[in-house]
Amino acid sequence: MSNRIDRVMEHMVANGLTQMIVSDPKSIWYLTGVDVEPYERLFAFLIRRDGHHAFFLNRLYNVSDTGFEEVWFSDTDDSIGMIASHVDPACTLGIDKEWKAAFLIPLMERCPGMKVVLASDCVDDCRAVKDEEEIRKMREASRINDEVNRLASEYVREGMTEKQVAALIDAEFIKRGCSGPSFTTIVSFGANAADPHHEPDDTVLHAGECVLIDMGCVKDRYCSDMTRTFFCKSADPEQTKIHDLVREANEKAESIIRPGVRFCDIDAAARDLISDAGYGEYFNHRLGHFIGQTDHEKGDVSSANTRTAEPGMIFSIEPGIYLPGRFGVRVEDLVLVTEDGCEVLNREDKHWRIVG
Amino acid sequence: MSNRIDRVMEHMVANGLTQMIVSDPKSIWYLTGVDVEPYERLFAFLIRRDGHHAFFLNRLYNVSDTGFEEVWFSDTDDSIGMIASHVDPACTLGIDKEWKAAFLIPLMERCPGMKVVLASDCVDDCRAVKDEEEIRKMREASRINDEVNRLASEYVREGMTEKQVAALIDAEFIKRGCSGPSFTTIVSFGANAADPHHEPDDTVLHAGECVLIDMGCVKDRYCSDMTRTFFCKSADPEQTKIHDLVREANEKAESIIRPGVRFCDIDAAARDLISDAGYGEYFNHRLGHFIGQTDHEKGDVSSANTRTAEPGMIFSIEPGIYLPGRFGVRVEDLVLVTEDGCEVLNREDKHWRIVG
Repeated sequence: MSNRIDRVMEHMVANGLTQMIVSDPKSIWYLTGVDVEPYERLFAFLIRRDGHHAFFLNRLYNVSDTGFEEVWFSDTDDSIGMIASHVDPACTLGIDKEWKAAFLIPLMERCPGMKVVLASDCVDDCRAVKDEEEIRKMREASRINDEVNRLASEYVREGMTEKQVAALIDAEFIKRGCSGPSFTTIVSFGANAADPHHEPDDTVLHAGECVLIDMGCVKDRYCSDMTRTFFCKSADPEQTKIHDLVREANEKAESIIRPGVRFCDIDAAARDLISDAGYGEYFNHRLGHFIGQTDHEKGDVSSANTRTAEPGMIFSIEPGIYLPGRFGVRVEDLVLVTEDGCEVLNREDKHWRIVG
Repeated sequence: MSNRIDRVMEHMVANGLTQMIVSDPKSIWYLTGVDVEPYERLFAFLIRRDGHHAFFLNRLYNVSDTGFEEVWFSDTDDSIGMIASHVDPACTLGIDKEWKAAFLIPLMERCPGMKVVLASDCVDDCRAVKDEEEIRKMREASRINDEVNRLASEYVREGMTEKQVAALIDAEFIKRGCSGPSFTTIVSFGANAADPHHEPDDTVLHAGECVLIDMGCVKDRYCSDMTRTFFCKSADPEQTKIHDLVREANEKAESIIRPGVRFCDIDAAARDLISDAGYGEYFNHRLGHFIGQTDHEKGDVSSANTRTAEPGMIFSIEPGIYLPGRFGVRVEDLVLVTEDGCEVLNREDKHWRIVG
């Protein structure tokens, strides 16, 4: 893991930074192996280019022998003052994107004149490129996701509610040793699927409606995320046409992924197909997002991202078409960039299928 | 709900503020009824003393007709620039404690010279005092918690794992219409209970060990939180003595709660009892925390809090004694401050009991 800190420090050097505060517990675990859920309390790791890194730890955290300087405080101590006395106010301080105003504003007041910059990319760009151990875990999380998605498609029946199907999925994740879903499981019937972020409710499934299932699990700290869209009992020609179009957009994007390809071009590959068919305005979100320890990590596949893919990056490819008041279709996989292309982590069939 | 915004604005006036950004989705729901889970995306509500409040909304959010000015953006828009053009750089801008550096630092860069202060209390102090509707919901969440705690105490058996007991609790919450636990359910056997934040693992219960269960559910958006500690098959005199002491500390603190009493004095009431018995160093956390839409809200019952209780406040009273490597006992209720005392929301018996 010290190798990971070295990589962060290379980014800091490139950004002219000598010190930075990492506050995201998942980043801290990634860099140090120290696993803390701080809730509303302060938890921070100060990286200093001279190698004298320091932990700021509440006595309630069950942590010991971190291998770094440990600055301990209790709930009633002036913990921000302790950080202030450890940073160099003459140098710019980098901050990761997760640090809350609750800590950042008091620290700035303690160190007037110290320049503070957002330096999250120094860590997040490292986390974006997965190593072998991380890839192994994410393959496994997606394997489980495929398996449970298949079960859910066999389980869903006309007359069931969205909540019933979501409950099955969540329970099957737990049975397979997952700590839980990686986000609130989405099961959307009919017109509900036209809202990309609809949450399962008591809506009942009727014949002829679409069944959109967007799901993911957390296994050994790492996430999966996939979407498949089915039709209950029957599908009309417009539904199947749109499903074919979305699937083709998904496959088209995946076909061009390799090191060096720009994310905006991957987005365009899918989006152009949908726009050319006249549905561009109904695909109203980015094509994909990075994923790892959380479902949405820094980095996206969108028209605004001109950076290029690198081996080890894992992200989603999830085109969709949403017809307000009618139905919606999304087809989503996770992909891993390899040396000469990409590996699609989801193996479950993507063609439209009748269920129920 | 406009009444709630009025209360926040009274706090702003008292703090000399004319504008403030509220970012906590639970605060925004509390003030406006608008319910969004933004994940990593920007979501903010700007309160302005002239009454022209504004929402900053991603087009992906399923929101309409908020009754306030709505500033819409998509993932590729300059959303921070939109906020910058809505605030008055000549006036101090208040920020709530949850806003992340990802947004705060870029906004400060856009408005150089604008003073930014932590103004979370303007909202959080309002949320700390519950109204009738909130009290009704929190009574119900605690009623369910009592019921499931009783079930868990009847269910636990020698040879079971912590995870098994926690799984029962989580499932029983769902059966009762809860959206889930309000925090990771804690079930700690024996020496594990000496870590106040231990998470359930595959540890197996043996006769003679303590069974500490710290649990809470979310029902209709509001949380419960309670702890009971049992003993499996038998209890030795030291275990029962410590349990009696912790329970008495809990009851002592609850007995002095009424409007006007300082939180530090409530903390001291329990802590002194434990310290006088020689166990002060083994009670290493604050006596309690406020609770509402999240398990830990702003406000605590600790030696550092010299503020006083007010009718409508709801918080936990949870003394504990933790003997490293041996066992731990905690007894926790939620209490509601009433006009002339307090109502203990948990009715489940607090005396030590043999289970398993």
